[in-house]
Amino acid sequence: MSKKAATKKTSKKAAKRSAPGWDISPADALRWTPEVDVRTMDCAGTPGFTGTRKDGEKLLAERAQELSDLQERLFAEGRSGGTRSVLLVLQGLDTAGKGGTVRHVVGLVDPQGVAIRGFGVPTAEEREHGYLWRVRNALPKPGYIGVFDRSHWEQVLVARVEGLEPEEEWSKHYDEMNAFEAEVAASGTVIVKVALFVSPDEQKARLAARLEREDKYWKYNPGDLKTRAKFPEYLDAYQDMLTKGSTDVAPWHVIPCDKKWFSHLAITELLTNALRSLDLGWPPADFDVEEQKKLVAAA
Amino acid sequence: MSKKAATKKTSKKAAKRSAPGWDISPADALRWTPEVDVRTMDCAGTPGFTGTRKDGEKLLAERAQELSDLQERLFAEGRSGGTRSVLLVLQGLDTAGKGGTVRHVVGLVDPQGVAIRGFGVPTAEEREHGYLWRVRNALPKPGYIGVFDRSHWEQVLVARVEGLEPEEEWSKHYDEMNAFEAEVAASGTVIVKVALFVSPDEQKARLAARLEREDKYWKYNPGDLKTRAKFPEYLDAYQDMLTKGSTDVAPWHVIPCDKKWFSHLAITELLTNALRSLDLGWPPADFDVEEQKKLVAAA
Repeated sequence: MSKKAATKKTSKKAAKRSAPGWDISPADALRWTPEVDVRTMDCAGTPGFTGTRKDGEKLLAERAQELSDLQERLFAEGRSGGTRSVLLVLQGLDTAGKGGTVRHVVGLVDPQGVAIRGFGVPTAEEREHGYLWRVRNALPKPGYIGVFDRSHWEQVLVARVEGLEPEEEWSKHYDEMNAFEAEVAASGTVIVKVALFVSPDEQKARLAARLEREDKYWKYNPGDLKTRAKFPEYLDAYQDMLTKGSTDVAPWHVIPCDKKWFSHLAITELLTNALRSLDLGWPPADFDVEEQKKLVAAA
Repeated sequence: MSKKAATKKTSKKAAKRSAPGWDISPADALRWTPEVDVRTMDCAGTPGFTGTRKDGEKLLAERAQELSDLQERLFAEGRSGGTRSVLLVLQGLDTAGKGGTVRHVVGLVDPQGVAIRGFGVPTAEEREHGYLWRVRNALPKPGYIGVFDRSHWEQVLVARVEGLEPEEEWSKHYDEMNAFEAEVAASGTVIVKVALFVSPDEQKARLAARLEREDKYWKYNPGDLKTRAKFPEYLDAYQDMLTKGSTDVAPWHVIPCDKKWFSHLAITELLTNALRSLDLGWPPADFDVEEQKKLVAAA
């Protein structure tokens, strides 16, 4: 207990410097702990953040420059023989805001350094392989920020709730996926796992809103109501995913998403933290700078 | 002649409505014509645009919203069974600004709807196939804006100038690539081909600048000076590419790039025009809206 308190204190100090508006650091505030039960949590909450919406939006705008700068350093490192990368894994029920996160958070950085991959229903070719095959093929290359819109974790969510696999199958996947992620992390990829939670009421409002405007119809899928009818089963599956899939190298973070401004800010902070943790410099010149200056002057 | 004049007049009228600062429409002003010789052109020019840098930057900022809206419509169409897409092909010598174009122009839209592909030296696997194989695999899916950073056209640029193929080989590629692009266009992809030109003096200044700051070293490659030494040969190859590779369905556009603000504005306008040409609406609901409203209300 005292050790934990000490950690929190240090984080708090660091957070005061780097994250105005945050009472404790975003990573600490949002990282899943056994006390967090997503079946009863407040999806309109802003854990760790004491500021207003205006404060949050201002902070997000301020982060844009730093995030963009860090991303360029990562990209430069990848171009210069580095092997590190970042992988943002997004999970969440319909309307929780995965798409908006990509647009508003990932959209802050140079698209050249980003590789976004959505995981829908597996194709025929994908079904011929194990469920990790397509995931492995989609891992970010050195220097890149990879983004998974849904991921291998669907194998203990949709596959479980919709009965696509028997329990004896899907229950094995937690350990398999943890081992897989440990391997990915060891190869130089910082994994940021983020689960987005919207309340049933807010989901209802967002689905209804898609039926009110013709520019939103394309986002509406009648099948979403079938998924909605299994909200409690999905939350059970999510709770188990968080419990069994949170590891030291790849912990889950839990984001309340009823307030979009908060979820965008929170995920921006987590992504920024991940990039900061790499302590990225600029690659040194692998040529003689003074000599090249002379050659350019004469060219 | 009179027909051409009439076309220009119409375009001018349209441009006055839609592109303040442009004397003639960007597409007309920038599309390659036989009178354009890139060996003698003014790379600091702003053809068609009569505004100042400030005007250009203001206009670019204004375009962001429209471009983003059009991209979302295209994406929505792709998600709803549509087959159309847009492909932006970027060619240009080192330092002309291909990377900056992706960052500043393509970065204006939702990264989820963009697929960026760079074409460097072919890999071993790629060399086992014809030069169009990897290009075909990288074509944008329905609903996407694809971006080629270099492209199949290198096969009549670097392959020609560096002697990677004999003339009897590379000289066949113009017709092959035109036929390939006609096929791609017929399948529903609007192709926007853009060649970026920087003057030798500005290139020298940009190379020198990369040696002045440690955060730019990674962009510097001593090999760029070897390419620079062949500037005239490359311009000959570019001129032939423009002459032989400009077709009705996939014309080349020529962008003077010594002024970065102009090149970003010009390419933004061309991309916006391409999306406008699709006359994109919003996909109609493929479900009964009123029925779904009731179901959501009861869910």
